[in-house]
Amino acid sequence: MFGVSFGEAERLYAKASNIASLKPVGVACHIGSQITDLGPMRAAFAKMRGLVERLRAEGLNVERLDLGGGLGVPYFNQPDPPTPAEYAAMVAQVVGGLGVQLAFEPGRVIAANAGVLLARVLHVHERPEGRRFLVLDAAMNDLIRPAMYEAYHDIRALLPRAGELVAHDVVGPVCETGDTFTRERLLPPLEAGDLVAFMTAGAYGAAMASEYNSRPLAPEVLVKGAEFAVIRQRPSYDEMLERELLPDWQTT
Amino acid sequence: MFGVSFGEAERLYAKASNIASLKPVGVACHIGSQITDLGPMRAAFAKMRGLVERLRAEGLNVERLDLGGGLGVPYFNQPDPPTPAEYAAMVAQVVGGLGVQLAFEPGRVIAANAGVLLARVLHVHERPEGRRFLVLDAAMNDLIRPAMYEAYHDIRALLPRAGELVAHDVVGPVCETGDTFTRERLLPPLEAGDLVAFMTAGAYGAAMASEYNSRPLAPEVLVKGAEFAVIRQRPSYDEMLERELLPDWQTT
Repeated sequence: MFGVSFGEAERLYAKASNIASLKPVGVACHIGSQITDLGPMRAAFAKMRGLVERLRAEGLNVERLDLGGGLGVPYFNQPDPPTPAEYAAMVAQVVGGLGVQLAFEPGRVIAANAGVLLARVLHVHERPEGRRFLVLDAAMNDLIRPAMYEAYHDIRALLPRAGELVAHDVVGPVCETGDTFTRERLLPPLEAGDLVAFMTAGAYGAAMASEYNSRPLAPEVLVKGAEFAVIRQRPSYDEMLERELLPDWQTT
Repeated sequence: MFGVSFGEAERLYAKASNIASLKPVGVACHIGSQITDLGPMRAAFAKMRGLVERLRAEGLNVERLDLGGGLGVPYFNQPDPPTPAEYAAMVAQVVGGLGVQLAFEPGRVIAANAGVLLARVLHVHERPEGRRFLVLDAAMNDLIRPAMYEAYHDIRALLPRAGELVAHDVVGPVCETGDTFTRERLLPPLEAGDLVAFMTAGAYGAAMASEYNSRPLAPEVLVKGAEFAVIRQRPSYDEMLERELLPDWQTT
C-alpha cells in the first residue's frame, strides 16, 4: 500500500517541483526484504534509472536515488544470498554514471547476524511415542518470527556434548501451541541447564519482543571482543506492575 | 508438550500420594482455546471423570477437578459458540455428582469481548486498480493476531457515515506486508480522522503488544458506564529511550 506507480511518481514530482515551499531532491524504491536473488533488484533499479532520466529530461532536479533495503541475510544452513560486494557490483552496473547520490537501507543484513538469542534448557521431555521436546526459558514473546512466519533460525549448543544428533521439537514455556520454535530439529544431546543460541536474531528479534504471558523482556547485552555490557536491563516484576494503574472509582 | 497421558497421570498421582511431603489434591485438563463445539470438551471431561473414579478406586484422595478453559468467544459475524449456560449444563451432566470441587479457567471468553482497540483513520488510499486501503494509526504491534493467525476481528466505525459498504484493505502504518489487519473488508465510507474499533480485542490484544518499529504501547483505558480512566499510560519516547544504555567503553 506504500508508494505510487511510476506514472504517478512522475506527475507528483513535477507537481511538487512547481510548489515554491517544496524542493524535491530525489526518488526512492523499496521492493521488499530478505531478497536472495539479484534479478528483481536489478529490474527495479533499472526502472528507477529510467524514472530519474525521464524526470531530468523534463528539466527536473534529481540529486538522490534511494534504492531501499532488501539484500538477503545469510541464514545458517540455507543457500547463501548474494554478498554485499555482488550487490554493489550490480548497482554500479545498473545505475552507475547517473550522477546521483545513492542511498541504501540495508538494516537487516547488517543487524541480523550481529545478534543471537541465548536460552537455557529447562527440561528435556521425552514422550512415550518417541518425540523429544526441548523446553527452553526463551519463548515466542522473545523471538516471534518462528511462530509468526515459520522463520528458520539455526540453533547451536554453546558447549555441545558428544553424541549423535537427535530430532528435537524446540519449545518455550508458554502454554500454547504457538510457542514452538521449530519441530524435529537435529541437535546434539542437551540436558537441563545447557545454553543454546538462536542465531541470526539481531533483526526482528528484540525489536518485536513483547511481555506476553507477563514475561519480562529479555535483557540485551552488547559484546565487543572480550568486553560486554547490558544495554537494556530486564525489567523487574515491580517495574512491570507499576505501569498498571487503578482508578480511584474502581473498588476491588 | 504439556501434560501427561492418562496412564502416566494415574501412576504419578499414586506415586505422589506416597510421598510424605506432597499432598495431591486433584487433576486438571486443558484441551485448547476458542473451542466452538461442546463435543470435544464433553469427551475430555468424561475421560477426566473416569480418571477421578479410577484414582478413588485405588483409595487415593481427589478433591478437585480443573476442567481448564477453552469455551469459544463469540466473535462478531461468526457462528456463535455455545453459551456459558450451555457449557455449564454439559459440565453438570458429565461430571455432576462426583463430589469434587470444580475449577475453570475461562479467561478468554470473559476478557475478549470486554476490550476493543480504538484506531484513527490516517488516510484512505485508493489505488488506480481499484483497491482501497484504510490506513490506521494502529498497527500489527498493537494487535498482532491478524498478522500472526489471520484472526478475524470485526471493525466498526464509531460514527458510521451514510453510504454503501465498500471493500477496504485495512492496514497499519508500519512499512511491511505483515501490517495488514484484513483484506477486502466491507465497511461504510470512512475519512481521515474517523475512529474505528477492532472488536473482541480484550484477549491476546494488549497482552501481546510490542514496541516494534519504536511504536509506544497504546494506552489502556478502563470504562465503566460513563466513567473511564487510563490504567496504563502510553510511554513517552524519552521513557523508551531511557531503557537503552550505552557502555562506557563504547565510543560513538
